Amino acid sequence: MKRKTKIVLDTSIFVNPDARRFFGKSPYEALTNFLEKLKEKKHITCYMPPSVYEELMKFMEHNLSPKKTVLLHKKPPASYQTPVPALFLYEFIEEIRKRMNKGLRITEKYIRKGLKGGEEQEMIKTAREEYRIALREGVIDSKQDFDLLLLAKETHAFLATSDNGLIHWAHKLGIKCLLAQELKEIIE
Amino acid sequence: MKRKTKIVLDTSIFVNPDARRFFGKSPYEALTNFLEKLKEKKHITCYMPPSVYEELMKFMEHNLSPKKTVLLHKKPPASYQTPVPALFLYEFIEEIRKRMNKGLRITEKYIRKGLKGGEEQEMIKTAREEYRIALREGVIDSKQDFDLLLLAKETHAFLATSDNGLIHWAHKLGIKCLLAQELKEIIE
Repeated sequence: MKRKTKIVLDTSIFVNPDARRFFGKSPYEALTNFLEKLKEKKHITCYMPPSVYEELMKFMEHNLSPKKTVLLHKKPPASYQTPVPALFLYEFIEEIRKRMNKGLRITEKYIRKGLKGGEEQEMIKTAREEYRIALREGVIDSKQDFDLLLLAKETHAFLATSDNGLIHWAHKLGIKCLLAQELKEIIE
Repeated sequence: MKRKTKIVLDTSIFVNPDARRFFGKSPYEALTNFLEKLKEKKHITCYMPPSVYEELMKFMEHNLSPKKTVLLHKKPPASYQTPVPALFLYEFIEEIRKRMNKGLRITEKYIRKGLKGGEEQEMIKTAREEYRIALREGVIDSKQDFDLLLLAKETHAFLATSDNGLIHWAHKLGIKCLLAQELKEIIE
C-alpha cells in the first residue's frame, strides 16, 4: 500500500497558464483531467478551502458534477483556533512596510512623468500595473491565500501552488510545496 | 497595599504633543517628570520593549541618568514563542489590502493632477502626506508597534499609548489601553 498523501490545492495550479498546461488546455479541462486521475489514487486526499473553491469555480467554462468536485474536500481551516507564530507577523509587517514605500516611489515617479505631459489613460494603466507588481506580487494579500497556508499547516499537507508569494510564506511556516509539474508526477 | 499594576509604555505618551502635555513641555521633561513620580509608586511596574526605548531616546534633548531609565524595565517580548491568533492576521491582511487600494487611487489622482500642470516639489509633498495618512495611519507598520502589542499581551499589562492605530489593534488582542490622561491619574 502506498503512503497516504495529503495535498491542499491552490487555484493557480488549474488557472495559471504555465501551471495548468501540465493537466489540460483550459481551467475546466485541467481540473477535470486532474480529478479523473485523482479518482484512482486512493492514497491521495486533496483539500481546498471553500473560499478558494469558490474562486476556482469562477474560472470554469462548464459546470462540474458533484461526483467530481466531492474529491476536492472543501475544508475550511480552523481559523479562530490556529495560532500563527509572532515571528511570521514581524516578517509580514516588515515586508508590507517595504512595499508601501515602493508604492510611494511609484506615485512620485508618475507625478514627475505626468508633469512632463502624456496620455492619461495610458499612463494610469502602466502606473496601475507597476503599482500592483510592487505592492502585491509575492505578498499574501487575500483571505484565500491565508486560508491555503492555514489549511496546509493544520492538516500537515503539501501545498500545491505555482504562486511564488504563497511558496515564500509557506516555507516560513514549514509547509512543503508542490509545483504543478511535481503534482503531475504524483498523480500520474 | 495597592493592587499591583503593570504598564507597557509607548513613545507617543512622551512625544506626541497632545499626550505629553499631561507630563511636561518637552519629551525630556515629560519623561523625567513621569519617572520622578513613578519612583514613589511601588505598586506600579512599567515596561518598554528595547526597540521602543531606543526610539524614545532619539527624542530626548538631554541624556538621562541610568538611575532614572532603570525604572523603564527594558523588556523584549518573547517574540518567537508568542502565538498570535490567526484571526488577527486575517483582519490585518484585509486592512492592508484596503490601504493598498487607497494608495493606488492616490497615485491615479496625482497623475491626473500632474497632467494638468503644477509645481513638482509642492505636488510631491502633498501626495506623500496623503499617501502616508491613507496607508500608514491606524495600521501597525513597524517592529516597535508589534513589540508593544506582544509585550502587553505577554505580561497582561496595560498599554499606555495615544496612537489610535495601536489602540485599535490592541483591542483585538484583548489588551487594556490607557490614554495619557488616564496614565497621569494613575501616577499622580
